[in-house]
Amino acid sequence: MPYFDAASAAPLHPVARQALLAALDEGWADPARLYREGRRARLLLDAAREAAAEAVGCRPDELVFTSSGTTAVHAGIAGALSGRRRVGRHLAHSAVEHSSVLHAAAAHEAAGGSCTEVPVDRSGAVDPAAYAAALRADTALACLQSANHEVGTEQPVAEVAALCAGAGVPLLVDAAQSLGWGPVPAGWSLLTASAHKWGGPAGVGLLAVRKGTRFSPQGPGGEREAGRAPGFENLPAIVAAAASLRAVRGEAAAEAVRLRALVDRIRSVVAERVPDVEVVGDPVRRLPHLVTFSCLYVDGETLLHELDRKEFSVSSGSSCTSSTLTPSHVLKAMGVLSEGNVRVSLPRGTAGADVDRFLEVLPGVVAEVRERLGAPVSAPPSPAPAASRVVDALGRRCPIPVIELAKVIGEVAVGATVTVLADDEAARLDIPAWCEMRGQEYVGEEPADRGSAYVVRRLG
Amino acid sequence: MPYFDAASAAPLHPVARQALLAALDEGWADPARLYREGRRARLLLDAAREAAAEAVGCRPDELVFTSSGTTAVHAGIAGALSGRRRVGRHLAHSAVEHSSVLHAAAAHEAAGGSCTEVPVDRSGAVDPAAYAAALRADTALACLQSANHEVGTEQPVAEVAALCAGAGVPLLVDAAQSLGWGPVPAGWSLLTASAHKWGGPAGVGLLAVRKGTRFSPQGPGGEREAGRAPGFENLPAIVAAAASLRAVRGEAAAEAVRLRALVDRIRSVVAERVPDVEVVGDPVRRLPHLVTFSCLYVDGETLLHELDRKEFSVSSGSSCTSSTLTPSHVLKAMGVLSEGNVRVSLPRGTAGADVDRFLEVLPGVVAEVRERLGAPVSAPPSPAPAASRVVDALGRRCPIPVIELAKVIGEVAVGATVTVLADDEAARLDIPAWCEMRGQEYVGEEPADRGSAYVVRRLG
Repeated sequence: MPYFDAASAAPLHPVARQALLAALDEGWADPARLYREGRRARLLLDAAREAAAEAVGCRPDELVFTSSGTTAVHAGIAGALSGRRRVGRHLAHSAVEHSSVLHAAAAHEAAGGSCTEVPVDRSGAVDPAAYAAALRADTALACLQSANHEVGTEQPVAEVAALCAGAGVPLLVDAAQSLGWGPVPAGWSLLTASAHKWGGPAGVGLLAVRKGTRFSPQGPGGEREAGRAPGFENLPAIVAAAASLRAVRGEAAAEAVRLRALVDRIRSVVAERVPDVEVVGDPVRRLPHLVTFSCLYVDGETLLHELDRKEFSVSSGSSCTSSTLTPSHVLKAMGVLSEGNVRVSLPRGTAGADVDRFLEVLPGVVAEVRERLGAPVSAPPSPAPAASRVVDALGRRCPIPVIELAKVIGEVAVGATVTVLADDEAARLDIPAWCEMRGQEYVGEEPADRGSAYVVRRLG
Repeated sequence: MPYFDAASAAPLHPVARQALLAALDEGWADPARLYREGRRARLLLDAAREAAAEAVGCRPDELVFTSSGTTAVHAGIAGALSGRRRVGRHLAHSAVEHSSVLHAAAAHEAAGGSCTEVPVDRSGAVDPAAYAAALRADTALACLQSANHEVGTEQPVAEVAALCAGAGVPLLVDAAQSLGWGPVPAGWSLLTASAHKWGGPAGVGLLAVRKGTRFSPQGPGGEREAGRAPGFENLPAIVAAAASLRAVRGEAAAEAVRLRALVDRIRSVVAERVPDVEVVGDPVRRLPHLVTFSCLYVDGETLLHELDRKEFSVSSGSSCTSSTLTPSHVLKAMGVLSEGNVRVSLPRGTAGADVDRFLEVLPGVVAEVRERLGAPVSAPPSPAPAASRVVDALGRRCPIPVIELAKVIGEVAVGATVTVLADDEAARLDIPAWCEMRGQEYVGEEPADRGSAYVVRRLG
């Protein structure tokens, strides 16, 4: 049962398991106590902090352990914003940050602060100049991920950090997806990460705050972790997190080369064998283990379900998967197709044979789903060109509106339009993306009695 | 090496260890995902929630898992205060709550709210009538622990809950110390607990919010745990927490009887064999496994250190232990002696022989520490009574001011006074407590050039 969703949660690394077991015996006591069990716990905590700080590239007293990557992000953003409140209450962040950053930004706005979302290009990367333009005299903090969690694209952290330094604005780098692969380029003021993304246990995040960065912890105080992470230290998990970070870093260089080749194979074979597919994200400046593609005329939930039946576990940024009804904000910001979206993120040690099998299975699964949905199999038939047409897809969920559009585009004259009436949120993203993939012109969106009218002009 | 500090952190219960190991293999994936690893994680999470809810006595959808007892308290208080913001911004809590409650209260006051601290009697219990008197028309929330973490005294939760219900005020019960021993009496609106106190792993707290309680989660939002606890679920630890709660509950009745008898033995033997000792807390309405006593003329840090050398691990509410320089707020609120304070909290399975050995060792250790400090060995000698005297203990740390007072009280005439000049914070608590123990009159405190002047009248 190949598990290809390491970007959600990596299976526990053997070193993490071993360290966790040892620390359950040695590190359950309160490290704040003076007796021997407490002193032993304190030694373990100090050693874990040193190991994690070395991997992050900071001083041990700059790093605290939080209860998750999300709480590290929340505490980091809140503390940095408050520490620079005199400067202003403006927060800059990219449009493709992890939801924990977006939630913190929303909370900041709800509390009267202001935010600027820096757009990304079609590969998912921010343009450093565009980022610099978002910095203002009252900018208290800037946030930029090291690499994107949905499409793998690396962000120009070093360039943005230099621009932030020039503007005197501290930069928080969310390194959740990349820290297991290597250190973040210098220049950050705050850094966050999450252990279960690199093969450590759940329940541990990292928050590093460089000396000299103004920081005022928010929420009720506490004595533990320099007042930056309340609650009893989850010491066994912290020990396991630090030990596994060191272990995965030791293996990172070789494993990155291997997984990068596997992902390159997925990128090329998917584009080759699956018709009407868009492989997204930067093909070169990317995480070694992650690739995302979108299949036209397919809905993400069915695709995931069918792949699961074939024993492949992947995730999707499409709407209608699990609890969410809106497509991924990352795909949306990139302006790429969101329907039939599949994210493959390979855990360390993934066998090449499993990837091969996935590539054998995938085209058939996609074809099967398309057939069931009545999607066009190849180029649509071209009867006598007709005048412009209206397609009513109201009440129909993604990918039906695009499938209906594809069915009739060949039936109108070149230069004439197809207007798709749709009220599914994903259509707003997927119809323009389809036009780009198909070389048709997306004229625009008009309000309608129900939903919207999306106008497409046939170019060829 | 007998470990007698279960109230700080209990060693991991074997069932917790077993469940944790199994869940590391079965429950590392994201329970929000649709593939099989995710579905399996979801099943484990649901089962853990049901087990924990049954132990708490609530519906599964009323309970969420947090990253610690402290974060459960912080989230519970913030959410309840915000949910009832229209009613008012007043918070009532006892003077002897855990520091997590006091920190949340301080944050509430810093944000413009108001708080009332309900006093306790000399046993550490609140008077329900006094609690009711603290409730106001604008009281948004009341907090009361189920039992005190430093002296073991049980609070009159049922009575206070009824009074709160009558006043229409929700009651948050911090059940961190008692939940492993049995359910909290009915009537609470919110309940919090911490797994590592009952033998579960670190990294798991419980927050239960009764349906119908107005609750508005604070801080950045999130999809997990009903929006009440952000971050990826620490599933292996959650599974271990729920399994161990069920296990310790199964053993609780028999083990409580056994530990209660051991604690009774400690209470009586300490009072018998150690001169000048005050055993504090309610002798009957108390946690089964916890007892606290204070030794006159002894400093807590040295006592802990000496007991540790004899291989006993206990904690202390005295000042000068570990990082804190002020005596325990609990002992202070009770008005009992804080110097030479020792808390013994027996883990489940504590052998009677270890308790016996502790009781053999303790009197000698206390005597040795007293001798080193030059404390009066028995009743002080009585030379010719003299006029009132002044003792200068400025710059001397606890327990020196009380030792100096004890040395000279026999030298003044009955009816005359001894004035102790002291600038150590603990003196404010310990000199009145000594007077009460010794049947002398504490006249009061007067400001002095440096520190304070504490006036004591000799009665006999």
